[in-house]
Amino acid sequence: MASEFDIIRDYFTRPVSDARLGIGDDAALIAVKSGTELAVSTDTLVSGRHFFADADPYKLGYKSLAVNLSDMAAMGAKPRWALLALTLPEALANPDSTWLTEFSNGFFALAGRYHVELIGGDTTAGPLNIGVQIIGEVPAGQALRRSGAQPDDDIWVSGKLGNAALALNHELRKITLAPEEIAQCLPALLTPAARVELGQRLTGLAHSAIDISDGLVADLGHVLAASEKAASINITDIPCSAVLKKYSRQKIATACLLAGGDDYELCFTAAQANRREIEALSAELAVPLTRIGKIHPGAGLIVKDAQGHAMTLEITGYDHFNP
Amino acid sequence: MASEFDIIRDYFTRPVSDARLGIGDDAALIAVKSGTELAVSTDTLVSGRHFFADADPYKLGYKSLAVNLSDMAAMGAKPRWALLALTLPEALANPDSTWLTEFSNGFFALAGRYHVELIGGDTTAGPLNIGVQIIGEVPAGQALRRSGAQPDDDIWVSGKLGNAALALNHELRKITLAPEEIAQCLPALLTPAARVELGQRLTGLAHSAIDISDGLVADLGHVLAASEKAASINITDIPCSAVLKKYSRQKIATACLLAGGDDYELCFTAAQANRREIEALSAELAVPLTRIGKIHPGAGLIVKDAQGHAMTLEITGYDHFNP
Repeated sequence: MASEFDIIRDYFTRPVSDARLGIGDDAALIAVKSGTELAVSTDTLVSGRHFFADADPYKLGYKSLAVNLSDMAAMGAKPRWALLALTLPEALANPDSTWLTEFSNGFFALAGRYHVELIGGDTTAGPLNIGVQIIGEVPAGQALRRSGAQPDDDIWVSGKLGNAALALNHELRKITLAPEEIAQCLPALLTPAARVELGQRLTGLAHSAIDISDGLVADLGHVLAASEKAASINITDIPCSAVLKKYSRQKIATACLLAGGDDYELCFTAAQANRREIEALSAELAVPLTRIGKIHPGAGLIVKDAQGHAMTLEITGYDHFNP
Repeated sequence: MASEFDIIRDYFTRPVSDARLGIGDDAALIAVKSGTELAVSTDTLVSGRHFFADADPYKLGYKSLAVNLSDMAAMGAKPRWALLALTLPEALANPDSTWLTEFSNGFFALAGRYHVELIGGDTTAGPLNIGVQIIGEVPAGQALRRSGAQPDDDIWVSGKLGNAALALNHELRKITLAPEEIAQCLPALLTPAARVELGQRLTGLAHSAIDISDGLVADLGHVLAASEKAASINITDIPCSAVLKKYSRQKIATACLLAGGDDYELCFTAAQANRREIEALSAELAVPLTRIGKIHPGAGLIVKDAQGHAMTLEITGYDHFNP
């Protein structure tokens, strides 16, 4: 069986140019430009919780980085370096297995796109657990925080929400999609796009931002709590796919849209005065940006239905200990 | 059951003063002093691999940080910030359980000693897996690397080696220690001291350094490979406890000393001209520092027995995929 050192050498060691020292010592070394702050975060994917045990390893490698890039996007940071803490069942480390090749190919495919360097990590045997740590740079004082929402801010979301959760619920047989429908929704679940460029372009423009990983209601709720503000949003304004729209009379589709999570889109707030600039940015980046509501003084979130009535929300965001 | 947000708020959120932004946003923010580089690394502890499933959670919290501090020590870096990726069986997150209280108390006890701030992390449900990421500062260009060993360098180790492995082998019933003996050895296994001050003081003094986590022979081997050098060490010079000495005729005790791992002592090389300075440092820090051999041109490691004959080593360092 491959040793842990072989695994690191064979699958995860690639030349680094932006780090002072990459994989192969007790720690990696990075130098930080003056005038910048570092944004650091970590996100873990656990087999049987975040993905099915037989998940495609290429897509898993891709997604394990994507969810971390999404955190950088939500801060307005440029992702630069990553570490990978991989706990791996022995069968997957067996030379007969292609798992590590595919996983690392998926990881590096996305890393290469954003020039993110893998500079360290740890490989251990055990139940499959994928921990990625990401480090990004942001101009000092410019990071997008959850706490900056202002009264009268527009609330925006990028992309379309709910497809990842819809695909998951299909896989869990809680809803049945047609083959062409599941084909349209699965990429959102398996290979989400992190809004890396958008996040960086929103610094100086948005007042607050978060990425939607736990579901719109929960994540917008985090912004409201951190900003000590209230908000109202209109469910009919929330961007979603034609597939989700088709099933919108089913309660589960509404739940996917409002609280499904795993969207990895950005939810941000910005002054009304910046609408044109944000719309121009949307066009330039070819990323749909949609206004879904407004920030108010006070506390709490109201979601209005098609008739403008406040909905009663029984749903909350995904909680790993109360799924 | 406690939610993942409750867990983070109740057990892991403490005020930060050295970070621009701590737990509670999509990422933490840190500012780095000019003239410094950052050393970053990650180490994971997996239940059933690195510790017994019923391990004392206080000591586990302590050790999960200690093994990461040891990587900072090996680079000569001052540890500053940590992230914690905790995958936790639901039973341990139950309010009836004291596991999280004890674990976090152990973690913060050691973090407080070195003014390390916990600035982020991720809490998920699943088989117990503890990933810590550590970020430290080191003056630019001063980090201790594995690759700097020079011919005629002395090879030094800190502390005493082998007690952690001896305690583990007692727990595994491969050797039987007397109660007072296991009591002496267990702290090395459960609450290892990371040589944080020593590492920082060795910058500018040592040519190369590594921490001994996989075992002396394997870790010194990493230094030799990175430095493209050979070495000879004398087994009788390797510092060990009276307990280990007592069992030294048993093959397993020799294996513990040379290849047991989990020591978290530093192995470093330095010019002969610096002997006095290193001895003075040893006295000042009250950390035993012992010369165990020399670096030579060439490749390979020779361990000499008490008669000065090269030993045949059947043992290698700990490999998680070939334990």
